[in-house]
Amino acid sequence: MQTTRLKLVTIIAEAVLEDRLLRELKSLGARGYTMGEVRGEGTRGIHASDWEGQNLRIETLVSPEVAERIMAHVAQHYFPDFAVIIYSVDAEVVRGPKYL
Amino acid sequence: MQTTRLKLVTIIAEAVLEDRLLRELKSLGARGYTMGEVRGEGTRGIHASDWEGQNLRIETLVSPEVAERIMAHVAQHYFPDFAVIIYSVDAEVVRGPKYL
Amino acid sequence: MQTTRLKLVTIIAEAVLEDRLLRELKSLGARGYTMGEVRGEGTRGIHASDWEGQNLRIETLVSPEVAERIMAHVAQHYFPDFAVIIYSVDAEVVRGPKYL
Repeated sequence: MQTTRLKLVTIIAEAVLEDRLLRELKSLGARGYTMGEVRGEGTRGIHASDWEGQNLRIETLVSPEVAERIMAHVAQHYFPDFAVIIYSVDAEVVRGPKYL
Repeated sequence: MQTTRLKLVTIIAEAVLEDRLLRELKSLGARGYTMGEVRGEGTRGIHASDWEGQNLRIETLVSPEVAERIMAHVAQHYFPDFAVIIYSVDAEVVRGPKYL
Repeated sequence: MQTTRLKLVTIIAEAVLEDRLLRELKSLGARGYTMGEVRGEGTRGIHASDWEGQNLRIETLVSPEVAERIMAHVAQHYFPDFAVIIYSVDAEVVRGPKYL
């Protein structure tokens, strides 16, 4: 079984950011996404918990270069104002070239 | 804490495939599964987006051999006709032998 | 893009354990969590399937030390009585120190 090593990038963000995030993911090179509803809680600074409630969990399989680009974009444009979580995990993907 | 390295195999597929996929996973050696509802969008070829809407995200922790078998099975039996995504990630699992 | 390698710990458990698990995760050092609803099926022993139905999937990004502590805690306090699944995956996290 031939597989391709890609990055599975996961973003957790407020539901209100859905349209904007999906549009930007696409323009940064993502070929698709999977999205589910989650609840969450986290701290944004040292002193206070400032988000809790309905969020989206968006996942996309992309090349390492696109993953890098997505993470840099989210860090620059979302971290100052939104409690967004973003991370990437190595995944062995069947029919990998489809995602590039 | 002793852990076992297993493969976490994730399948994203149309909800209509649920019963068939779960039956097949079991017969290929999976000992259990976790399933959630997701939405998604992706491209199947170069020219057109051909699936969008309600999908299932099925996850199963299995040995590398069973992961290989599941991925080969899905590639052979689903890729020609369905917009299925399948990938595997390394996971350190507590009480791992239970999944073998 | 600077990232930090953390552990993404996933717990699948009965919904009734939500409050207890979240309280304990926090006291073991987790700074936040994401939670979604899933269904599942699995075997707990060799002979019988003994859980099926609505479950929670709780994810938390933590240091390797906290991951170790959470997995040991769950193994000791839940495995004897509950059909809990717990595993960890390596993740490259943007703004990682926030989770430590």
